This record gives sequence, structure tokens and C-alpha cells, in this order.
Amino acid sequence: MSKVSVVMGSKLDWPTVKEACLILDQFGVDYDKRVISAHRMPNEMFAFAQNAVKNGTAVIIACAGGAAHLPGMIAANTPLPVIGIPGQTKALGGMDSLLSIVQMPAGIPVATTAIGVPGAKNAALLALQILGITTSKIQQQIVQYRQRMHDEAKESGNHLD
Amino acid sequence: MSKVSVVMGSKLDWPTVKEACLILDQFGVDYDKRVISAHRMPNEMFAFAQNAVKNGTAVIIACAGGAAHLPGMIAANTPLPVIGIPGQTKALGGMDSLLSIVQMPAGIPVATTAIGVPGAKNAALLALQILGITTSKIQQQIVQYRQRMHDEAKESGNHLD
Amino acid sequence: MSKVSVVMGSKLDWPTVKEACLILDQFGVDYDKRVISAHRMPNEMFAFAQNAVKNGTAVIIACAGGAAHLPGMIAANTPLPVIGIPGQTKALGGMDSLLSIVQMPAGIPVATTAIGVPGAKNAALLALQILGITTSKIQQQIVQYRQRMHDEAKESGNHLD
Amino acid sequence: MSKVSVVMGSKLDWPTVKEACLILDQFGVDYDKRVISAHRMPNEMFAFAQNAVKNGTAVIIACAGGAAHLPGMIAANTPLPVIGIPGQTKALGGMDSLLSIVQMPAGIPVATTAIGVPGAKNAALLALQILGITTSKIQQQIVQYRQRMHDEAKESGNHLD
Amino acid sequence: MSKVSVVMGSKLDWPTVKEACLILDQFGVDYDKRVISAHRMPNEMFAFAQNAVKNGTAVIIACAGGAAHLPGMIAANTPLPVIGIPGQTKALGGMDSLLSIVQMPAGIPVATTAIGVPGAKNAALLALQILGITTSKIQQQIVQYRQRMHDEAKESGNHLD
Amino acid sequence: MSKVSVVMGSKLDWPTVKEACLILDQFGVDYDKRVISAHRMPNEMFAFAQNAVKNGTAVIIACAGGAAHLPGMIAANTPLPVIGIPGQTKALGGMDSLLSIVQMPAGIPVATTAIGVPGAKNAALLALQILGITTSKIQQQIVQYRQRMHDEAKESGNHLD
Amino acid sequence: MSKVSVVMGSKLDWPTVKEACLILDQFGVDYDKRVISAHRMPNEMFAFAQNAVKNGTAVIIACAGGAAHLPGMIAANTPLPVIGIPGQTKALGGMDSLLSIVQMPAGIPVATTAIGVPGAKNAALLALQILGITTSKIQQQIVQYRQRMHDEAKESGNHLD
Amino acid sequence: MSKVSVVMGSKLDWPTVKEACLILDQFGVDYDKRVISAHRMPNEMFAFAQNAVKNGTAVIIACAGGAAHLPGMIAANTPLPVIGIPGQTKALGGMDSLLSIVQMPAGIPVATTAIGVPGAKNAALLALQILGITTSKIQQQIVQYRQRMHDEAKESGNHLD
Repeated sequence: MSKVSVVMGSKLDWPTVKEACLILDQFGVDYDKRVISAHRMPNEMFAFAQNAVKNGTAVIIACAGGAAHLPGMIAANTPLPVIGIPGQTKALGGMDSLLSIVQMPAGIPVATTAIGVPGAKNAALLALQILGITTSKIQQQIVQYRQRMHDEAKESGNHLD
Repeated sequence: MSKVSVVMGSKLDWPTVKEACLILDQFGVDYDKRVISAHRMPNEMFAFAQNAVKNGTAVIIACAGGAAHLPGMIAANTPLPVIGIPGQTKALGGMDSLLSIVQMPAGIPVATTAIGVPGAKNAALLALQILGITTSKIQQQIVQYRQRMHDEAKESGNHLD
Repeated sequence: MSKVSVVMGSKLDWPTVKEACLILDQFGVDYDKRVISAHRMPNEMFAFAQNAVKNGTAVIIACAGGAAHLPGMIAANTPLPVIGIPGQTKALGGMDSLLSIVQMPAGIPVATTAIGVPGAKNAALLALQILGITTSKIQQQIVQYRQRMHDEAKESGNHLD
Repeated sequence: MSKVSVVMGSKLDWPTVKEACLILDQFGVDYDKRVISAHRMPNEMFAFAQNAVKNGTAVIIACAGGAAHLPGMIAANTPLPVIGIPGQTKALGGMDSLLSIVQMPAGIPVATTAIGVPGAKNAALLALQILGITTSKIQQQIVQYRQRMHDEAKESGNHLD
Repeated sequence: MSKVSVVMGSKLDWPTVKEACLILDQFGVDYDKRVISAHRMPNEMFAFAQNAVKNGTAVIIACAGGAAHLPGMIAANTPLPVIGIPGQTKALGGMDSLLSIVQMPAGIPVATTAIGVPGAKNAALLALQILGITTSKIQQQIVQYRQRMHDEAKESGNHLD
Repeated sequence: MSKVSVVMGSKLDWPTVKEACLILDQFGVDYDKRVISAHRMPNEMFAFAQNAVKNGTAVIIACAGGAAHLPGMIAANTPLPVIGIPGQTKALGGMDSLLSIVQMPAGIPVATTAIGVPGAKNAALLALQILGITTSKIQQQIVQYRQRMHDEAKESGNHLD
Repeated sequence: MSKVSVVMGSKLDWPTVKEACLILDQFGVDYDKRVISAHRMPNEMFAFAQNAVKNGTAVIIACAGGAAHLPGMIAANTPLPVIGIPGQTKALGGMDSLLSIVQMPAGIPVATTAIGVPGAKNAALLALQILGITTSKIQQQIVQYRQRMHDEAKESGNHLD
Repeated sequence: MSKVSVVMGSKLDWPTVKEACLILDQFGVDYDKRVISAHRMPNEMFAFAQNAVKNGTAVIIACAGGAAHLPGMIAANTPLPVIGIPGQTKALGGMDSLLSIVQMPAGIPVATTAIGVPGAKNAALLALQILGITTSKIQQQIVQYRQRMHDEAKESGNHLD
């Protein structure tokens, strides 16, 4: 009941998406990861999305860049919450990815995070927060994760030189 | 366990946020709504966020415009998932609100939806999808809601003239 | 062999898309028009795109706004040329639609035209130019259409006051 | 009847445009390529465009950057479909090229693809799709090309580490 | 030797361009005005530009909107200085016009002014400043024009209430 | 009464913020510096801001990047003037930081400077100008600092080659 | 010692700037207001700025739109803190004004506030905060002003319907 | 009567501005070059601009970056035509410089060229075109310069490989 599915539009997104997976690993939460290109593997995309509920997936994380249709098209095919990570892009920095993911029409939301690596990390944390609503162990882990971030941020201030 | 908290930075956001509330009403899901200005009511904001878990809130929806700090600052003070709605703005259309909400640093995600009314509707639906993971009735309602959207969209095509 | 399919993501796009249809009417070229929402009618979208070749369609015109996935997702499901019209949007003017349509990844092009009504007119003319490659009557009509535009533009200069 | 003309505004565009040519090579489709600067060779540009039909050209691909007038001015001088590739630019990433190419006024379309290399590849594929409407061999090649992209994308997912 | 040619891409630009003409009238400088669409009247555009020197024109003012090719293409066909006015546009405010006019490649400048009416007025004044280099009467008129602007601006400050 | 507090959202901002500190050093003005992350150390942020007056701080300088909430949230918790430095960012250059800091709603200003290092230097100078209103020694130092800048700029013009 | 000078580039800025003046009125702080156009009244601008210290001015507020040079050029001519209000503009919403004011080079800061009316109000409040550092009555007024804003914001939440 | 004055806001602009000077050298046109910072040398800037006519200057070229006030403030102080080169910038690519230079209010034009090096070259060519109106030798040189550009562009097309 707490499985996360991590999807990316291209293997080129893996260095970004890996940052999400590392956090899921760190929390010990079960997830699968795969490349599903919205444009090159549309049937697999629909099959994946339409089967997600019955496969026991709870939350889907999808990363794509440019005309980034993957998160929104998955969202259109499942009642599960879908988190979208806008990939950073060479020409426009990722503004294209961001607008393609976040500006979804009324009816089909995509929970959009920041462009690139910070967004990938936050996609994992958001998935964990969602699971944490009903799994108190995960919510506690988030509290602890934040405590560590807090302590590291605070400590880092002692070393300005 | 399925309560949604809806927060807006100003009463001026209410016409937008109301669209989220109407959907929550339609789904029969319990929610509370309030004005909490990040900048004018910072202590209330922190108290609200820091008490959300113990108050039994599951998901928080926050709408703000311009230098929109409300969703991110609530997110910094609770392990619960926070959904951010970027308000449309007069000068820059809402690009300022969008970037202020979505570009959160690694560690503290805000699940960002589209600018303005479509984003408000989608914030409600995203909250419902999150609750629907563990409440099958809500997930079924989402499936039905989408079926109605589907049917209306399809039907609308018969009236192009 | 010269059929054009005109698709729009929402009936709200019809006032824009109608401008394309009026030009197709004027050229006497056979076309069909329909509402297919990428997000609310994904299965119909795929069925439409995957059957387009066998239905004898030659060119597809698709209009959508915001996170405009319709043209690209149709393009991913047919080897036919797909022309995308970015709808003008309230918050961002259509910059979101434009980037969502034009920034397609290598492999699946969408022939993108201008935002809004000028783009709709040009989508029809582009479809006609494509058909005109092998249908000399249509190419001649384009030449005549341009001659009329030329004459009207020239004449209009006599009435500056 | 299936000849493609590839034009670029400067030899500096060749590394981008070459990607289009490599795809045309791969499909075995006849094409010519040339540098025609809209601003430095305006007469050659007009002669080229005005003679394209009688030279048996079917589709024109034009790449330019910055105030990118080449695709639109060629389009203004031929009834043939013109595909525009916005060159990536140093200062503004290619947003200048994109808007200069895509925002054509009603009457004279340019089929615009993505900024830079992905756009160049897609310009070739779009030309091939257009030719493929009436040349079934090319349409079959597109189907096969997509199948290979599909297989490679799918296979790439086995190597995330 | 002091003739100014004012050109606009469409009669729709006239309300903007008229503001330039009113200033030229006010200075008593000889000018002609015409509609020449770069895309609908390309041959007239080239003929106009290529004959400008022999017609005794000194400075050309050209206004266009969207993918605004008129000023740059005129500039490519004459050694005379060309002043470009970016038209304000519905979808993007005129950012498209501005970038299409100002981002000219090295070799062919367009002297670009502000978007819309302020740019039109300034195009006229710039033309007059150019003529004023060698025609001291015009330069004196500019000095007087500025003195009036100065006085009016100063006086206007007495009426803040 | 002339103490400046310099705050940054992350140690990663230090190379930028250091430029502000070097100028404060140069003017011999007392300041403290610290890392306070709005999102990872929210309670410390509020405590810092709410105690600033009683700690004798006169001006606060805060630097943050992306969804940069630090300057605005400090400003919301103190009646002291707060100067915000928008950090340069990888994806969007700092446009996100700028809009998140400058677009504050009516009621709670942040005195925003330029993106990145120039903004950091100017934040220090602005703090000094503020202190200089009532401390004539500092105002004189500013006048001298500007004289040196003037002389260096002037001198630099002798070495163009 | 607590005088504020309010300057605007054009009488057209008065409806915006008036909002700043109303707040200064409300606080009972002495100020003068005037139109000084950077471009039409450059000598007056320099004289104004260069005499500000000796005239006993403490803080200068300057509003301008478009290529908004007024705040930065005043800042270049006085060691006093200068607050810049970017005027909202017709074509680009005020993005032009904002960048022209905030992106000052290292050496000469302008304390920039939000675009338009919110920025005007905040410019006044920022000036008051600056004066409040050494005038405890003003600082107390700011605390009271915020308390009223707080109470009104809180109360407004009781009337969502 | 044909002297050009080249001004830059900082020695850091010299690598860009040098490209303008090289072209002026190539045409054998008399020019002077200098660093005048609008913000660090405001009095020199005004003196320079106010003396330009009596010094026999015909055209002024000014380059600046960021909040680029130099071209516009020079323009405000002379009836001579002023050409503005927007410097490329680290954070925003030069969009800030472009808008600060081009969006001048009605009354005081700046003839704006492209961002960075292409704009510097074009500023020189524009100055030469302006001088060429009354100096036929310069106009002939422009015609020859363009012929060489034409020939080189044409020749470059023979070496695509």
C-alpha cells in the first residue's frame, strides 16, 4: 500500500531522478523506477498509468523536460496523485518543462516541484509526506530528516570564512 | 483522518480559493478554510502549521500571490503535504506567484498547481487524490468525477457551430 | 486522400479553431472537427490518433492551451504530420501553451504555429500547403489566396488618415 | 517530387542543421542544403523561394537564430510548406529565434519546431511525415524509425544504476 | 535630402504609426507613409527598399508586430538607416515584436525603439535627430521640442493632488 | 545603534554574501553574520527577527535563492528595514529569487537589490547609506567610497586597447 | 532630520505614488513630492539629488516606468538611501521597469519595491522603517500599523462565503 | 562633422565595444572612445553629452549592462542621435540591459541594437549608415561591406560537410 513508482521520460533524466531514488532508499520505502517516454512509448505509458491502482501503487513520480507531457498524461490515466519534476533544459533552463507540467487544466492536477535536482529530491519527500499521512513511521522519519537538515544548516553557519 | 485545511493569504484570494472549496463540498469531504497572511499573521501561520498534525489535518491547501511565501512557510512547519496555488497577479500574470511557490529548495516541497482558478480546482482534486489512496470511496468519487468530465467534454464536441 | 482532421482540447478553443475551419471551408477542402481532451478523453485521443492513417486522414490540426499536451500526444500516436495551435491563455498570454507544444523532444515533431487566432488561420493554411504539394488545385488556390491578401494589404495603404 | 531543401542563415547553424541532414540521409530522401542569409543574401533568398516550386521542391527546412527572418521570408515567397528551426542563441537561449519564427501573422505560416538540435531532427522528421502522406514507403520508414526509438527507450530503462 | 519614409506591416499598425507621423508633421519634415507587408507584399518591400536611396529617402521608419520581419528585411536591402518600431501584441505584449526586430545579426542593424506608441513617437524623433546632424534647423527644433517637454513636465508637478 | 545583521539562507550563499561583508569590513561597521534557513530553521528565523530590535540591530541584510522566502519572512517579523539579495540560480538565472523577494504585498516591504554579487555589494552599501542618515562619519565614508569608484572608473578609460 | 522626498518621473505615475503619500500622511511624517523626469528634466534631477543632503532630506522615494532611470540616477548623485518603485507598464506589465531599477551595478544601490501600487505603499513603509531606526515614535507607529493590518487580515477570514 | 563618440559604462564592456571600434577603424571614420559610468561618473556623463554638439560629434554610441542607464541619460542631454548597445549579463543574459535601454519613454529615443557583440558591430554600422546619408563615400563603403558579407556568406555554403 505504500509503493512509489518513479518514471522518467528518458534515460537522460536519470542523474536528476536518481536524487529522488536516493531519498526513497534512505527512508526504506519500496519503489520501482523505469523509463517511459510519453512520446516514444505512449502505449506503455497508458498501460502503466491505467494499471497503477491495481498494482498497488500509491504515488507516482514522473520527470520530463521540454514539452514535458509525461506527468500530465499519466495523471490523466490514473486517480492516483502524480508528482511532476520539470527537467532542467539547455535552451530555456527548464521554464519550458515547468510550464508544460504545472499549467494543467482544471480536472487533472500534477503536483509540481522545482526544476531539476531540488525538484527531484522534493518529489521523493512529497511522496513520503503523502504516505506519511497514514503511515506514522514515515511521518516520523520526515520529522527526523528535517531535524537533521535543521542541524546541518545551523552547524554550517559556524564555518563562514 | 481525512480533513483538509484550506488557507489563503488574503481575502482577495477567496474568489479563486472558493473553486477549491466547491469541489471539496461536492465530494463531501470535511475541510476548514481561513485567511492566514504569511506576512501580516506570521505567528498564526506558524501556530497553524505546527499544530496541523495534532489537529488531525491530513492535507493543507494554501493560495497566495506575488511573493507568495505562505505555502512554502507552512510546508516548513509541518510534515504534512502542502499544496500551493499560485494566485494570478495584475502586473506579471502570476509568474511571480508561480516561481515563489514552486522553486522551493531541496528539503521542503510544495505540491504546486496551475496559476489561478484551474490551479484552485486542481488543488482540491489533488488533496482528494491523496486522501483517496487510503479511502477507496474518495478514489471512486474521483473516478466518477472524471467520468463526468469525460462525458461532458465528449458531448460538448457535438455542439461546434 | 486530402482529408484534414481538426481537433481541439476543449469547446472553449472553438472560437479560435473556427478560424481554421473557415479557411478550410473557403478552400473547399474536406475536414472533420471534434473536441478531444488529452486529459479528460485520453483513450479517445489515442484511438483517434492511432486510426488516423487508416481513416484516410492526411494532416491533423490540434489546438490546446496551458499545459497543452494534445498536439504532441496525437503526434506520438500517428506517423501523420500534426500541426499544433497554442491557445492564448489568461495568466501567461499563451507562452505556456507555446512552450508545451513547440519544445517537443527529438523524434516526434509538432508543426507549431502562432499563439491564438493567427495561429489557427495559419494551421489551416499550412495543412493546405501540405496537401498542395501533390494537389495542384490546392496549391493554385493558395497562390490566389495570397494574391488576394496582397491586393487587400496594398489597397489598405490608400486609406491611412 | 519528394525533394527537400535545407537552408540555413549562416554556416554557424550547420552543426545544428547537420542533425536534420543525417536523418534525411538515413531515410534515403533526396535533399539539397545551402547557406542563404536572409539579411546578407536577400536576393538569393527570394530567388530560391520563388523558384522552389518549379525546381520540384516539396518541402523547405530553414534554420536561423536571433531575429530569425529566414523561414518566414521564404514562406512569404512560396506556396510550399516551410519548416522553421529556431537556432539556440547565446544571450537569450533561443527565445528570440523562437518568437521570430513562430509568431507569424495570419496568412503565411511557418511550421516551427523546437529550439536547437531537437528541433533540427524534428524538422527532418516533419518533412518526411509530409512526404509520407503520399509516399507510403516513407511513412513506413517513419513507423520503423519510431519502433526503433521505442525499443531503445524501453531498453534504456534496464540500465538505471 | 531630408525625406523620411514611414512604412507599416499592416493597416492595423496605423493608430500606432500615426503618432510618428504627427511628430513629423509638427516638425514640418517631408515624409511619405505606406503599408508594405513583409509577408504579403515581399516584392514591393524589396523594390521599396532597393529604390530608397535613388528616391532620395534619407531615413526609413518601419513598424511591425509579432514575427516582425519588416524593419530587418528593409534594412537588408538598403544602406540607409532603418528605425524599427515593435508593435504591441495581444498575446505577448510585444516581446515577440521587440526580439524579432532588435536581435538582428551582425551586419544589418535596425535602430529599435520602444514597444508601441512611445516607440512610434521616438522613431520620428530619432529620424529627426539623424536629419538634424546636418540640418541645423531641425536640430534647433528638437532642442525647442525638448524645452517644451521639459516645461510641461515641470509644470505638471504643480498639480499633484 | 549601528549594527547590521547579515543572514543567508544557506552556506552556499556565502560566496555571494561575503562580498557584502567585505564592504562592511572596509567601512569598519559592526555586523554579525549567520546562516538561517527560512525553510529548515523557521523557528530560529522568527526568533532572530522578533529579537532584532531588542538586540540593537538597525538593519538586516538577507540573501536567498529560488523560492526565496527569507528576506520577506524576516521582514514580516520586525519593524526594522530588511534588505533582500536575490541569489543567482542555475535554472532560471535568479529571476525566481528576484520575483520571490521583490514582489512583496503591500504592508511588508523588502528593499531588494540586484541578483547575485552586485546585489550583495549594494546591500551592504544600502545598509551603510541607511546608517549614514544619522551617522555622518558613515555618510562621509560613502562619499569617499564613491569618489574612489569614480576615480577608478575614470582611470580605467585610459587603458582601452 | 526625518524628511522624505517623493519623486515621480511623470504625472502619470501620480495615482500610484499617491498611495505612498497617503501612508506618509497617515504617519504624520513630513515629505515633499514632485515630478522630476530623468529624461525631460535631467538638470533638475541632478540638482535635486545633489542638494538632497544639504536640504535635510533623509530618504528619497522615486517612481518610474519602462526604461526607468530616475531612481538609479538620483542614487548616483546622493549618498542618501533611494527607494525605487517600478511603475506598471502597458506592454510588459512592469518587468521592464523592475529590471531597469533593481539591476543596478555594484556601487550604487536602489532599494527596489514591488511593481505598481503595492510597491508604492511599501516604499513609504520602507522609508518609515528607515526613519524608525532612530525615531522610536515612528517605529512604534509601524508596529501599530502592522497590528491593524494583522487584525484586519484576521477579521477578514470570518467573512468567507 | 563625421565624428563618432563611443562610450561604455565600464571597462568590462570593452571586449564588446571593441568590435564596434574595429569596424569604425575599417571604415576609416574618426571616433573617440571612453569609459563614462552613468552611476559612478554622472557629472562627466552630463558634461560629455551636453558638449557633444559643440565638440562636433555627430553620433554617439553607448554600451551598458544590467540597469543600463548610460545610453538613455546621454540621450536626455543631447539632441544628437544616440545608439545603445545592451551588454550581455551573467544572470539574465542581457534581457535586463535590453529593456533598460530600449523601453525609453516618448520624447527621448535611444536607437537600440542587439545584445552583446552583434549589437556592438551593428551600432558601428548604424552610425556609419547615419553618416552615410550625407557622406556618399561612407554609404559606398557600406554597400561594399555588405557585398563582402554577401560573398563570404555565399562562399561559406560551399563548405558544409
